Amino acid sequence: MTVLSKLMINGDRLNDSINRLARIGKQPSGSICRLAFTPEDLQARYLVQQWMIEAGMTVRIDAAGNLIGTYAGQNQDAPALATGSHIDTVPSGGKFDGVLGVLSGIEVVRTLREANLHLHHPIEVIVFTDEESTMIGCQAIAGTALLNSPERYQPKTGESIQTCLETIGGNWEQLATAARSRADLAAFVELHVEQGAVLENTAKDVGIVEGLVGMRRKAIAITGEANHAGTTPMDIRQDALVAAAQVVLAVRNIARAQPSQPVATVGYLTVSPNAVNIVPGRVELAVDIRDLSKDCLDEMLNQLEHEVEAIASDTQTEIEVTPLLCVEPTLAAPPVQTAIERVCRQLGLSFCHLPSRAGHDSLEMGRITDMGMIFVPSQAGVSHSEGEYTSPQQCTHGANVLLNTLLELDQIYQA
Amino acid sequence: MTVLSKLMINGDRLNDSINRLARIGKQPSGSICRLAFTPEDLQARYLVQQWMIEAGMTVRIDAAGNLIGTYAGQNQDAPALATGSHIDTVPSGGKFDGVLGVLSGIEVVRTLREANLHLHHPIEVIVFTDEESTMIGCQAIAGTALLNSPERYQPKTGESIQTCLETIGGNWEQLATAARSRADLAAFVELHVEQGAVLENTAKDVGIVEGLVGMRRKAIAITGEANHAGTTPMDIRQDALVAAAQVVLAVRNIARAQPSQPVATVGYLTVSPNAVNIVPGRVELAVDIRDLSKDCLDEMLNQLEHEVEAIASDTQTEIEVTPLLCVEPTLAAPPVQTAIERVCRQLGLSFCHLPSRAGHDSLEMGRITDMGMIFVPSQAGVSHSEGEYTSPQQCTHGANVLLNTLLELDQIYQA
Repeated sequence: MTVLSKLMINGDRLNDSINRLARIGKQPSGSICRLAFTPEDLQARYLVQQWMIEAGMTVRIDAAGNLIGTYAGQNQDAPALATGSHIDTVPSGGKFDGVLGVLSGIEVVRTLREANLHLHHPIEVIVFTDEESTMIGCQAIAGTALLNSPERYQPKTGESIQTCLETIGGNWEQLATAARSRADLAAFVELHVEQGAVLENTAKDVGIVEGLVGMRRKAIAITGEANHAGTTPMDIRQDALVAAAQVVLAVRNIARAQPSQPVATVGYLTVSPNAVNIVPGRVELAVDIRDLSKDCLDEMLNQLEHEVEAIASDTQTEIEVTPLLCVEPTLAAPPVQTAIERVCRQLGLSFCHLPSRAGHDSLEMGRITDMGMIFVPSQAGVSHSEGEYTSPQQCTHGANVLLNTLLELDQIYQA
Repeated sequence: MTVLSKLMINGDRLNDSINRLARIGKQPSGSICRLAFTPEDLQARYLVQQWMIEAGMTVRIDAAGNLIGTYAGQNQDAPALATGSHIDTVPSGGKFDGVLGVLSGIEVVRTLREANLHLHHPIEVIVFTDEESTMIGCQAIAGTALLNSPERYQPKTGESIQTCLETIGGNWEQLATAARSRADLAAFVELHVEQGAVLENTAKDVGIVEGLVGMRRKAIAITGEANHAGTTPMDIRQDALVAAAQVVLAVRNIARAQPSQPVATVGYLTVSPNAVNIVPGRVELAVDIRDLSKDCLDEMLNQLEHEVEAIASDTQTEIEVTPLLCVEPTLAAPPVQTAIERVCRQLGLSFCHLPSRAGHDSLEMGRITDMGMIFVPSQAGVSHSEGEYTSPQQCTHGANVLLNTLLELDQIYQA
């Protein structure tokens, strides 16, 4: 154990890889546009694939287009220990989101190979397909993809998911073959930038993720009666915007009242006919609620339903609530959390436990195997923009935690 | 007095005129599109002008394009008693809004002429230009037109106000010459459909307008910070939509708390970036407040300003309030109101006193002379649509009240 725990990755090499990948899709503003399935995505996949091969991995592409590099274990029959993340970006992305996890995985393998070390388990580094939009890659591996509803996947390129998968070497018809299980994946660990400011604000080097929050989205349509803003007395109005304002505040208050600190947002709202001199006749809005606890999510939705009924009655409007999205939370596996914590102590890095309130490939991977996530700080919590920044040293710390966590897990899952 | 008070207009002839004018601009839906300055507006003006001439009036067009028919008085030096309204419509208008006032004025003159009767004062019937949009016609007569800011008038045709006025025989350069004063206009009375449901709900034949409400419009821009709806904790958000929701409710509550029953509306609101998963960074909205009392308007705006400060502080947002429009209320002259009331009693018509919460040509006319308005019911309060309806009998009642009110005023202003 002593020897293994002193194994360290090459920080310069890791950060050089990050900077080289950042050139692909670089915009004049400094942001990166590398949408899944675009020529930029393909170019990045090609480069990463080369790096995998150079690191001594065998590479395959599954039916979901996931790029999977495998570094052989001493026992090739053992299930793999997997890591990875994604290299696609949002339209104005930064250079760390996703990329850090993929390139740290490759750097871990480079380091093992330099040390002439093969673990008991094979190591897999997975580049998941289209994390920023459809999440088709991790869903396919987790077996949660909607195999009968290709139309539910709408890639940002505007093309069908079938066409998109073909572009990157996948195959929609064979998608079910991408599914994995605990039998061949002993555990999955993802290193990612926080995309929030908890670590920076608490001056911690590492965040140990307790789980990824679940999400409920509802569309709310409020129908009142459009009317003359001058001649319609206040007491007979059916003002859809007054009702919507009450819904917006109810959503906030419901989240604030919960001890687990969930988040709830009305980010989208449109008014019709939207004229200064007409009492609004209709408002459509969308509610987004997230928490680590399914019970808390259900409780908040239950409260919202009651509030909405009271608001409809108070404002003489009709309010229709339609489900848009329901994603269950995924908890991190205790053995993986414990391993990360032990490694942080060994490496002298400060840490805290926190939920991930953003979605990641781990959200789906945690449904089929023991999952854990390692967060490193994001400057000012900024992400999805050219302002996204994690220092070279912080990236190096993250990759060292990943390496040593995989070494720990190799012991634990062998037992 | 006995003879005069028994003079009655010809209801069939009036309603026939209303129906004939309604053919101009008639849409497949049944609504009427007769925007000011369009060929339909010109066609209607031409027809109305013919009716004025046939009724024994001399006709002139002033620099604002107002069409003014004059029926001679016994004393041609006396100031005129004026009536009238408009014949332009909104894009989907009805057949009574404005038209009833103009055609009843002509019907009054027809009736006087049939009775071989000339009053002491000349009678003027005025077709005001573009009541539904710029109100340039009544503003020019009241001397409140913005002579140095033609760009502030944006006619619905998309052409400049100069070009539009030329189309109908007016002349922007000469606009100041359209201004009138009490010296040549002893009083102005306008008959109009209510465009609200007060008369129908209280089962009254006639509404005696106490005055036309003033209006204040403000643009409110709220700047918070757009942020990830998942990773931004509730307690550090600067959510512009949460602030806007509080403003919407404050606007309503401020109006409700006033005893004079003012109205206050947020009819326009837009959210940015308006995405379900982003905390709103900016909201722009517009507030419209109306009341008969200038003091009440000022008091409400004062309260709104204080509320806005508190909301900005509570939500950690910046809120900027910009004036959009300020129209002072105009009160109806007591002698005119009294005359209308007396006539209603003579004719056996039920009545009530009420403010006009919509704008009319009388709003401006009341700034230069004694003004009064006669309302007749609108079915279900509907207006500005093909559903606008006032029965032939109700139209006839209104025109009879107008005729007899002018006879009353002829006595009063002679003294």
